[in-house]
Amino acid sequence: MAKIKPLDDRVVIERIEEDEKTAGGIFLPETAKEKPQRGRVIAVGPGKLTDDGDRAEIGVKKGDEVLFGKFGGTEVEVDGQELLIMRASDLLAVIES
Amino acid sequence: MAKIKPLDDRVVIERIEEDEKTAGGIFLPETAKEKPQRGRVIAVGPGKLTDDGDRAEIGVKKGDEVLFGKFGGTEVEVDGQELLIMRASDLLAVIES
Amino acid sequence: MAKIKPLDDRVVIERIEEDEKTAGGIFLPETAKEKPQRGRVIAVGPGKLTDDGDRAEIGVKKGDEVLFGKFGGTEVEVDGQELLIMRASDLLAVIES
Amino acid sequence: MAKIKPLDDRVVIERIEEDEKTAGGIFLPETAKEKPQRGRVIAVGPGKLTDDGDRAEIGVKKGDEVLFGKFGGTEVEVDGQELLIMRASDLLAVIES
Amino acid sequence: MAKIKPLDDRVVIERIEEDEKTAGGIFLPETAKEKPQRGRVIAVGPGKLTDDGDRAEIGVKKGDEVLFGKFGGTEVEVDGQELLIMRASDLLAVIES
Amino acid sequence: MAKIKPLDDRVVIERIEEDEKTAGGIFLPETAKEKPQRGRVIAVGPGKLTDDGDRAEIGVKKGDEVLFGKFGGTEVEVDGQELLIMRASDLLAVIES
Amino acid sequence: MAKIKPLDDRVVIERIEEDEKTAGGIFLPETAKEKPQRGRVIAVGPGKLTDDGDRAEIGVKKGDEVLFGKFGGTEVEVDGQELLIMRASDLLAVIES
Repeated sequence: MAKIKPLDDRVVIERIEEDEKTAGGIFLPETAKEKPQRGRVIAVGPGKLTDDGDRAEIGVKKGDEVLFGKFGGTEVEVDGQELLIMRASDLLAVIES
Repeated sequence: MAKIKPLDDRVVIERIEEDEKTAGGIFLPETAKEKPQRGRVIAVGPGKLTDDGDRAEIGVKKGDEVLFGKFGGTEVEVDGQELLIMRASDLLAVIES
Repeated sequence: MAKIKPLDDRVVIERIEEDEKTAGGIFLPETAKEKPQRGRVIAVGPGKLTDDGDRAEIGVKKGDEVLFGKFGGTEVEVDGQELLIMRASDLLAVIES
Repeated sequence: MAKIKPLDDRVVIERIEEDEKTAGGIFLPETAKEKPQRGRVIAVGPGKLTDDGDRAEIGVKKGDEVLFGKFGGTEVEVDGQELLIMRASDLLAVIES
Repeated sequence: MAKIKPLDDRVVIERIEEDEKTAGGIFLPETAKEKPQRGRVIAVGPGKLTDDGDRAEIGVKKGDEVLFGKFGGTEVEVDGQELLIMRASDLLAVIES
Repeated sequence: MAKIKPLDDRVVIERIEEDEKTAGGIFLPETAKEKPQRGRVIAVGPGKLTDDGDRAEIGVKKGDEVLFGKFGGTEVEVDGQELLIMRASDLLAVIES
Repeated sequence: MAKIKPLDDRVVIERIEEDEKTAGGIFLPETAKEKPQRGRVIAVGPGKLTDDGDRAEIGVKKGDEVLFGKFGGTEVEVDGQELLIMRASDLLAVIES
């Protein structure tokens, strides 16, 4: 089975559909001006390379449920599963139940 | 109940309606060119990652009443409560009573 | 009474009307292409957070009479007083009498 | 036979066609909004020159199967083989089987 | 009498009219594509705040005759005198007689 | 005979025509979306001045055969020879035979 | 006689006309897409102020014959002589005979 290892500060996200069971009572209203999307982190890149050669820490980890803007990320289908690759800086928040 | 943990220098804001009781005598005139919005800080992110791997301090804390521009932030509804996620740098001021 | 504490390098400015008594003989001609506005500094933020975690010095202090461009700042009314919140970097000069 | 040595943080990529055998079950749906392209890394540049005169590490190596956006890179044909030259920062992820 | 103290790297300039006596034989042709303006430095700010908390040196001093582009600066009238406030980086050259 | 010494990180390039003998089997297809151009490095500048006063290394040397984008560089004719002056960062790759 | 002292990294350039005697056999073809202009350096500024308070070295000196792009610089006439003031970074190359 294929494994996607995101580069730099990118993460791989599995989108959570509206009718899927999720942490707590998060509800994303249809009427919101910029409605964020929900997803689960599948893979995390090594972090952005800093000027002194280290990798900058990424604030999310595999398994985290996250909110992200509607217009970020690139879609890719792996083993029949539709995923998103986006920069961690485009993630808004982690949702904990 | 779900808990939103904002990432980087983001904060979660609960908007304060015009007719709600607020600190001191702040009144936001309808006629102002760019009328700021009032809100209360619900959650604060860890701060922006600096070049040397630390987190930059955020100037507001949970519970602060704040002013922010009209066009910042992303709306999200959690447990029936409408919230805003925005970067702390988009906050204008803290209001103290 | 409410108190506005500006964030980062922002200042709170009380606009000085044309017919109000001011320092020296400053007169702002109607015909100028970009006529600056006059005001008095009411509150000063802690300064911009620098890369090494300090706060950068702000060149004005409470009470200073200042000039600023016409299109900067956000209007807010506090206890019936109309104020402006703007970044200190948008201030052009201090006027001394 | 000619050899292409990419400069700075550039890599040379050999595109993998849709019907070609690839790692795992990666499938790039025609319907995706921004469908990434697949390819194999043929050559890797020395890395971007940093401010202190070193070369920044590149996160991929020769032979890696990679995903990249549709609109990156410059096409070149070497010894009858069609290749792409692009910056490593334009690569999204490495695919492992 | 009022005194204008420019902030950061700003300077206050008194424009020199074409028919006014000036250093040497400087003549600004009407036909030039971007004709610079002439002026005399009236006041100099403390300099731009650098990352380590110092003030960056400004290359002009009070009394210098300078050339500057046509579209820089903000006009202000002080004690009946029309002045310009602009950033020192917008000054092109000093003219010495 | 005149000699062109490029400044900063610029290089002087002599374009290699399609029908000219070149290293290996490089062929630049007419149909490519952004077809790179081939050329030979004639002169190399001292490198970009870094913040600490050194010159940043340039990744090509005199005599190198290089690929570059179609829309970079400035044309100049020296002693009847048509040359291009461009920044080294606009070069894509070195071709070795 | 007036003397122009350029500020920061600016230089003063005296344009060399096409029919004027110049170093070597430089000829600027009319048909070139972006034909560079020739000139002679008349004065050199102190260099750009760096972050640590030094002045960055400028790669040309008074008397150098230089090539520069068509759309850089500001025209000024001093003692009847038409000159150009431009940033040294806009100079392409030095021509030596």
